[in-house]
Amino acid sequence: MIDAISFNDSTLRYLDQRYLPLREEYVSTRNYEEAIEAIKTLAVRGAPLIGVAAAYTIILGINSFQGTKEEFPSFFKSLVAEVEASRPTAVNLFFAAARLKKVYAENYETDTIEALFAKMNTAARKIHDDEIANCDAMSRHGVDQIKIDLAHILKTRKLNVLTHCNTGTLACCGTGSALGVIRLAWQEGLIERVITSESRPLLQGLRLTAWELEHDGIPFVSISDSSSAFLMQRGMIDFGIVGADRIAANGDTANKIGTCAHAISAYHHNLPFYIAAPVSTIDITIPDGTHIPIEERNADELRTIFGTQVASPTTPVLNYAFDVTPGKYLRGIITDKEAVVGNYITGLAALMEE
Amino acid sequence: MIDAISFNDSTLRYLDQRYLPLREEYVSTRNYEEAIEAIKTLAVRGAPLIGVAAAYTIILGINSFQGTKEEFPSFFKSLVAEVEASRPTAVNLFFAAARLKKVYAENYETDTIEALFAKMNTAARKIHDDEIANCDAMSRHGVDQIKIDLAHILKTRKLNVLTHCNTGTLACCGTGSALGVIRLAWQEGLIERVITSESRPLLQGLRLTAWELEHDGIPFVSISDSSSAFLMQRGMIDFGIVGADRIAANGDTANKIGTCAHAISAYHHNLPFYIAAPVSTIDITIPDGTHIPIEERNADELRTIFGTQVASPTTPVLNYAFDVTPGKYLRGIITDKEAVVGNYITGLAALMEE
Repeated sequence: MIDAISFNDSTLRYLDQRYLPLREEYVSTRNYEEAIEAIKTLAVRGAPLIGVAAAYTIILGINSFQGTKEEFPSFFKSLVAEVEASRPTAVNLFFAAARLKKVYAENYETDTIEALFAKMNTAARKIHDDEIANCDAMSRHGVDQIKIDLAHILKTRKLNVLTHCNTGTLACCGTGSALGVIRLAWQEGLIERVITSESRPLLQGLRLTAWELEHDGIPFVSISDSSSAFLMQRGMIDFGIVGADRIAANGDTANKIGTCAHAISAYHHNLPFYIAAPVSTIDITIPDGTHIPIEERNADELRTIFGTQVASPTTPVLNYAFDVTPGKYLRGIITDKEAVVGNYITGLAALMEE
Repeated sequence: MIDAISFNDSTLRYLDQRYLPLREEYVSTRNYEEAIEAIKTLAVRGAPLIGVAAAYTIILGINSFQGTKEEFPSFFKSLVAEVEASRPTAVNLFFAAARLKKVYAENYETDTIEALFAKMNTAARKIHDDEIANCDAMSRHGVDQIKIDLAHILKTRKLNVLTHCNTGTLACCGTGSALGVIRLAWQEGLIERVITSESRPLLQGLRLTAWELEHDGIPFVSISDSSSAFLMQRGMIDFGIVGADRIAANGDTANKIGTCAHAISAYHHNLPFYIAAPVSTIDITIPDGTHIPIEERNADELRTIFGTQVASPTTPVLNYAFDVTPGKYLRGIITDKEAVVGNYITGLAALMEE
């Protein structure tokens, strides 16, 4: 299995994702400032993985602490602030920091500094273990749902599945969300071939998902994003599954730009299209997708590719990082708790109450 | 106006499109072998423009002829063969060569060599003039159709139009097919903004269409191909128009990969989507799109971008150059003769009989 991030003997080890797929470079460090730099420079990326990296970075910082118990609170406060500032828009980073702050707050008064550090260490590892467990649970629920929805095809042959962007180990620590489902489906003999769309502008599908699939020996092929409709028309795709950045109460889902186009084509060709994402992605305070703000990113993401100028530097560009797929195009939303199908408003609300 | 190709004083002048949009480099030559090289190396590209370049290349070859009238037939035969071999899959090149061969065959016996050459020169210029006239006719019919179909919006505001790949002067010599319609619509005050999708893998939209629009001062914005569905959802696109490589009897249309995805999204959002292409693109001997062979191109078109390796060199890639858009998704097929709307089987057949 790909070791995107690990923590042993007080050492953080991570795969520097900036060089993938052309170079597989692992970095080991005991220095929390180096770890912060890795988050800042996108050497580590992917929402859940950033959370785990942040937790371990805080542990590295704590391990470097040389003062008295009385000096620790102010040290800890500035350490967390520094980690939180490394990628201010990454919510998982703040969730991870909050979990460690809670352990600190609940145990500082009563514990020795050694006992406190041990509990924080355990909490950091738990954040990591939880992400791995989330992936396993999503994978199980996803595969079960696919077996129901695509039983008619599985009677005679294996399935061709479309995925978009990167939702694998490189993003999630575990086997992945959508890619976790695909991995388990492959292990259970359900998959003929994975079709991975390149995911312009930053090419995470062509670079990262392709690298993961090649690593695992799962048959796949890369396509340009705009090819998926034609492949569906020719019967070369049986279903689609992708991740999510945010899910509204009615199932409208914000995800990497291009998801909505894939989903509309799938809907049009009567192919199931799924979202796989942890419950933490669902925000039932958002009634529908029109209320999800969509980040517009730098024009140079399109105008240059890996430092090579491809367009005129004066070309105006509209570079939405995400789009919103209406819930009505989705066959199901696969979470770590269960697969929600049918009426999302009641299904997602029930899920949040459990 | 952009001068993509011209012929004056026995000199061929063309814009070397390989360096666009970063460098605007014009080349002048009286040497037919240099002109053949320009076709071979894609310095000149775009189906109609290749036909015009081939015609002028033959004229350059003839101008270099030093022999007697009796020696001309064998010289001419080998010259034409050499030009035809420069891009063996470009049908316009063969159409152009065929027109000059016909002038030769009909006049060689009766004419002096000077009179024959003058007639061939006139024929070459006519090929060029015909392409320009085709663009003007398509533009007129397209704008008239848009004024009918989008009258309800035009009452209150101008239109936002999506186009794909390059169908302008750089491809067609004249104002273009789809881009010709857009240009005329802009001149007539109907257009708010053009949305040009980049057209992976070779980025003709981002590089060439953007360059043409910037040159003409028409407001536009470039997007990644997979953004169009989301822009339609947000009401940022009112209609789409693209070119065609081949149109079947029922209106099914082969065009640059990505067209089908745009068209499905447009259909889904109730937005008109048009093809603009000369009658010569229609092949009523092909009953429907399933009979159009679709070229699969080299994997490195996706794996490398302008010489920069972006994906693993071992990543398998499925790189269809074109897709087929079912006629049912199209609001109309705009030709140089007329705009065909409604039943394509009867409409296109009637067009071919005129």
